[in-house]
Amino acid sequence: MKIIIVGASGTMGTYLVNAWEQEHEIIKASAHSGDIQVDITDPESIENLFQQVGAFDALICTAGPTYVGAWKSLSSETFRKGLEGKLMGQINLVLIGQHYIKPKGSFTLITGALTHEPQRNFANASAANGAVEAFVRAAAIELENGVRINAVSPTVIENSPQYFPYFPGEMPTTMKQLEYGFRKSVFGANTGQIITLH
Amino acid sequence: MKIIIVGASGTMGTYLVNAWEQEHEIIKASAHSGDIQVDITDPESIENLFQQVGAFDALICTAGPTYVGAWKSLSSETFRKGLEGKLMGQINLVLIGQHYIKPKGSFTLITGALTHEPQRNFANASAANGAVEAFVRAAAIELENGVRINAVSPTVIENSPQYFPYFPGEMPTTMKQLEYGFRKSVFGANTGQIITLH
Repeated sequence: MKIIIVGASGTMGTYLVNAWEQEHEIIKASAHSGDIQVDITDPESIENLFQQVGAFDALICTAGPTYVGAWKSLSSETFRKGLEGKLMGQINLVLIGQHYIKPKGSFTLITGALTHEPQRNFANASAANGAVEAFVRAAAIELENGVRINAVSPTVIENSPQYFPYFPGEMPTTMKQLEYGFRKSVFGANTGQIITLH
Repeated sequence: MKIIIVGASGTMGTYLVNAWEQEHEIIKASAHSGDIQVDITDPESIENLFQQVGAFDALICTAGPTYVGAWKSLSSETFRKGLEGKLMGQINLVLIGQHYIKPKGSFTLITGALTHEPQRNFANASAANGAVEAFVRAAAIELENGVRINAVSPTVIENSPQYFPYFPGEMPTTMKQLEYGFRKSVFGANTGQIITLH
């Protein structure tokens, strides 16, 4: 399969690339490195990514910039980070990518437990996750040619221990669980699903 | 109680104003009419609303502009309507309004069944709803001085029969059910809840 991983240089992306690159043609896309550089907050940059890649079987996004910080610092300005990043960036990957993906291809986006299990400092990520999850359900009934769409929803990531103190009571998602969530979406037949990992 | 209703001239707002104005001081806010005009897509206009109203007990928002149209017409441009309107507009009412609301006051936002029950043509509204619902849960653990926040989630509204054909299988929400949903949020003690109506 020809699989685009957006966020390929991040914690999740690096793990997936290592796990899958022997068996699949992986196109590594990142903000500042990889095979192709892409700024997911810019629709023109996204269009450029797909024009360079051409037809593909699956797109995975593990990139989701959001604003993390004290509630008092949350404003219409700081809220933009997640709105343009994890939310609109991922939605634009689908709205634009649907014109390039092969029939029966799949999109897999990234959300997280914060949709339903809020933690202090992460309201921006909660909102972005909630939007993406509802969009995934809506897009699943609209996409044509058998194209599927799902989201993978981890808790705090095993390989990002710097975030553990901000997620009291959340059992960290292991990298293996995360990888298997993406496997279920990309190689399975589900669509419109929010894949939780436990 | 001093209650701001944003969207006071709409179908839901008009019903609430009529139902409550004998017992409460209702501040009617709308895009083009009412006691105060407000453009919820503009943070400065929202700030101006609260400066004119001063301290208040409750804010209800029934205004949620979104893009409705065929999936093929959904793009990074058309998606903006819901992003700036129902999503960021409502979130900004909270982020800005928290500096004016009285202790133990409440915010009640509007979402809808499309969060979990998508229908064709409404992916933009689904995403906006999902964001607002996750934000409500996150804001509920952050707001101070006993301030509460909930969302009311109707299906298609009884008094908007022009939308019935787009919501096959959705039992319309009656105006009375809708009013009682807002009653539960404003006069009850819940916070962080998505109030469904049936």
